[in-house]
Amino acid sequence: MSGSMVSIEKIKQKDIAALSRAITLNESTIIEDNLLVDELLRDATRSENKSIIISISGIPGVGKSSFIEVFGTYLHRLGFSIAVFSIDPSSELSHGSILGDKSRMTELSRLKNVFIRPSPNSNKLGGIGINTYKNIEIAKLAGFDIILIETVGVGQSETLVKQLSDIFILLQMPSSGDELQGIKKGIMEMADFFIIHKADGDLKIAAEKSKKEIESALHLTRDEDMTGRIFTFSSIDKIGLELIWTSVLTYFESQKEKGEVALTRKNQEKYWAEESFFQLLQKHYAHKFKGELKVLLDKIDNGVFVGASDMLSIFSKSNGPNG
Amino acid sequence: MSGSMVSIEKIKQKDIAALSRAITLNESTIIEDNLLVDELLRDATRSENKSIIISISGIPGVGKSSFIEVFGTYLHRLGFSIAVFSIDPSSELSHGSILGDKSRMTELSRLKNVFIRPSPNSNKLGGIGINTYKNIEIAKLAGFDIILIETVGVGQSETLVKQLSDIFILLQMPSSGDELQGIKKGIMEMADFFIIHKADGDLKIAAEKSKKEIESALHLTRDEDMTGRIFTFSSIDKIGLELIWTSVLTYFESQKEKGEVALTRKNQEKYWAEESFFQLLQKHYAHKFKGELKVLLDKIDNGVFVGASDMLSIFSKSNGPNG
Repeated sequence: MSGSMVSIEKIKQKDIAALSRAITLNESTIIEDNLLVDELLRDATRSENKSIIISISGIPGVGKSSFIEVFGTYLHRLGFSIAVFSIDPSSELSHGSILGDKSRMTELSRLKNVFIRPSPNSNKLGGIGINTYKNIEIAKLAGFDIILIETVGVGQSETLVKQLSDIFILLQMPSSGDELQGIKKGIMEMADFFIIHKADGDLKIAAEKSKKEIESALHLTRDEDMTGRIFTFSSIDKIGLELIWTSVLTYFESQKEKGEVALTRKNQEKYWAEESFFQLLQKHYAHKFKGELKVLLDKIDNGVFVGASDMLSIFSKSNGPNG
Repeated sequence: MSGSMVSIEKIKQKDIAALSRAITLNESTIIEDNLLVDELLRDATRSENKSIIISISGIPGVGKSSFIEVFGTYLHRLGFSIAVFSIDPSSELSHGSILGDKSRMTELSRLKNVFIRPSPNSNKLGGIGINTYKNIEIAKLAGFDIILIETVGVGQSETLVKQLSDIFILLQMPSSGDELQGIKKGIMEMADFFIIHKADGDLKIAAEKSKKEIESALHLTRDEDMTGRIFTFSSIDKIGLELIWTSVLTYFESQKEKGEVALTRKNQEKYWAEESFFQLLQKHYAHKFKGELKVLLDKIDNGVFVGASDMLSIFSKSNGPNG
């Protein structure tokens, strides 16, 4: 992609083409493209921004998209502009499930002032990386009121999800057993809100039971009071959406007042800067040591064992006698 | 940990203490410890090894541990020695679920010639890294007949799981809906075997239905014939275990005959060598540029935007005028 600049004015008007272009530049593998996005963000991140960033996480099949469709449409009706980022490394927004995917956010995607962006390609960090953070920065620059991030969360990526959002909502399946199946300690300690989803029909009773289980588990594992932050919900019945939103907003406002939101965002900026630093470092030196790496891999092809000591000698040699 | 050598003889006797010590050295953050493990593996990886490495993947709650308990106990009865690695970044073997975890592999863990190792601590690669690969190499050196790897698989880490094992078994929940909930394209294309688990009681019919759905989905998405590689199973009823094992073994043997197993393992060795190369590179230069990184992070603390260009200038400066 050639590097003509994206109009910051158009982005601030939430122009879909300009937003998409900025995101494409950000996700480009060409460093010059990425630098253009940095240029774009240079002033933006410094300015006051009004966005609330909410991540919606949960295991596959829990109904994250259905929830976001219902929740987003509700928020839109309240007058908010909304950006949705779907971060699922192995599916795209339109090609998620094997058997077709007609029901994913169809209503939401038709609304004005709503921008929906599917996930970037899979990478080792579970689809979440510096690009994701910068995509959200672009949406903040555009001035979306609410930014929703859909992530698969099964205890692998919760730390990264925390580094992206102000609020972390975990969707949970109603459990019919005696155990909190599939809910891991890590994620249990990190989520700000718990929603037992699919609380309709035959699963209604199980959902209520799960709610009680989660309440008592949280009581044991969390220091802070989680009262009023655990809900059952059905994206079919849609009852109780107002209560959920009010609770989220109240919590966000109180965190903001305490200075927690600003602190979290500053730490996130530092986290991703460090991440970016190491990524660039790796890119730079991977290029520099391309030949040496090939020699090592050829050795393996020839049945020779290659260990860390073989590698370490390469790096220290390049640094001269003083390391 | 100080660096006294682990006895290769004791490891080959499957001595638990020696195995545990080798794994601890491997997972140590001290490079000298890691080098000792390399020394241990230097000859080992070159020798013929008889282990079959099978990964068992699936979403949380699908019953991976119960399946491994039943499957492992069955294989043990057939006379095989077994190593189990549980790679779940947010839980440990004994502290996995919130509400206690008494039922995890109790029978299996009491048997002779069975070595069970819980997951290392969480890291960004979803718990799977060069350490995991080398742990498996240690188990291969010890001569375990079958090495089982338990991994959370939801489309984030399937590529990594593929880089660890000969055979990839995906456990799937019986689905009551019309859709293959929670089964993503990526994992669908990578698994060698599909087992619809919990096919008992009320879920028996749903499991059979899911089997048919998966069969037709695979027919659409996979080039190779998947007949005889999709099963329903109950770890309570335990019916059909022999058939599953025979199919896995037959498939493995045919892959081995075609030279696929050797090729896969060689490629895995190269993959992890490259991974290790970049990890060491990062460690080496992170140390070298520690001061520069701190300056950048301090800038952020002071409200200054830090972008890729600020970072790039650091690396190119260090390389002198000739890059």
